Amino acid sequence: MKPEPRLVEVRRNVLKHNDLVARELRARFQREGIAVVSLVSSPGSGKTRFLESTLSRMNSRYRVAALVGDLATENDAVRLARSGAPVKQIVTGTVCHLDASMIRSSLEEWHLADVDYLFIENVGNLVCPASYDLGEDVRAVLMSVTEGEDKPLKYPAIFNGADVAVITKMDLCEAAEFDLESARANIQAVRPGLRVLCVSAKTGEGMEEWMEYIESLTPAQK
Amino acid sequence: MKPEPRLVEVRRNVLKHNDLVARELRARFQREGIAVVSLVSSPGSGKTRFLESTLSRMNSRYRVAALVGDLATENDAVRLARSGAPVKQIVTGTVCHLDASMIRSSLEEWHLADVDYLFIENVGNLVCPASYDLGEDVRAVLMSVTEGEDKPLKYPAIFNGADVAVITKMDLCEAAEFDLESARANIQAVRPGLRVLCVSAKTGEGMEEWMEYIESLTPAQK
Repeated sequence: MKPEPRLVEVRRNVLKHNDLVARELRARFQREGIAVVSLVSSPGSGKTRFLESTLSRMNSRYRVAALVGDLATENDAVRLARSGAPVKQIVTGTVCHLDASMIRSSLEEWHLADVDYLFIENVGNLVCPASYDLGEDVRAVLMSVTEGEDKPLKYPAIFNGADVAVITKMDLCEAAEFDLESARANIQAVRPGLRVLCVSAKTGEGMEEWMEYIESLTPAQK
Repeated sequence: MKPEPRLVEVRRNVLKHNDLVARELRARFQREGIAVVSLVSSPGSGKTRFLESTLSRMNSRYRVAALVGDLATENDAVRLARSGAPVKQIVTGTVCHLDASMIRSSLEEWHLADVDYLFIENVGNLVCPASYDLGEDVRAVLMSVTEGEDKPLKYPAIFNGADVAVITKMDLCEAAEFDLESARANIQAVRPGLRVLCVSAKTGEGMEEWMEYIESLTPAQK
């Protein structure tokens, strides 16, 4: 019995199919002038709260929307919808990541020309989402101070494939005895030159810098 | 192009193969009189520190050993080896979970009759490890207070397949504004009757109760 070679072969086909759909999505986003930002992290890193704060800050000035992935529950969509932005939940069942086809299907009912920024919150998982292009412009990898400084070294693929790293829950930095310099060094070891932002959605620390970063992505056509 | 049906079919074969190896491992562990405990959680939930504390507490009274899985680095094996117990790192590369064959290969050089308790620390991932039986007697799912109370609802499969839930980093409970009763209710909603232990490897809180639980698993043949 040789399951591995067959699995690899099929996985390649799935990934190739995903890449084609992602390329199609990226072209469509550019055509419509939408900046697309995806968020990946472990479960419990604070993606939803961070995104909630981001949407609330942007909603009065931009047309923002969000897709949010989870294995189960629509809780995150309910939380994010409080910001006033249109939000759609993607329930993946047992699938450990979002893929480009899920994004495409979720966008079917939306009029994309009415959106300036689309945020995509992936399933909480520091491994599998690394392999799936969603057609985004920017992928942000989040890690919270309570997870420890070593995560970039232990999950290198997801940090390597990110465009920006966001260290969250900075308000817990001291309580968690988090060594920020060591975390920065580990990020740079895995992905030299990667921009790192430090934030707390709770206290607002670093959120202005994040907003400036996001606004620098303003779609050219709008 | 129909990638999904083929993927499902191949995945079934891989899982079936895994189940056969896991069954073989379980029979072997019983024959040798070893109690096997696996730990699953998100990245950064404190599995390694918890296991380090567990091994240190047990090492003078029992013959304990550990296998530890990570995508990259041997850091955890180095940390755990400080306890004095034999430890082996399984580096999975891009694979998001341990499987039974990895466990079997890792045990090849060990004389299992010399071990009372074997601990297996899985890759940090709340999704994929749920599908892979490792031949363990007990699977403990860990969640830290900083991850939020909703994790059982959002990752139901892994809580449903666990034999005990361990809430870690209780020392950060207040700083993280963690609602223990809500977390307990969410665990019970997903897996009614699941035993829940609350611990802090840092302060030692709850570690005695965990030790009693582990010692209640004492292999019958020794």
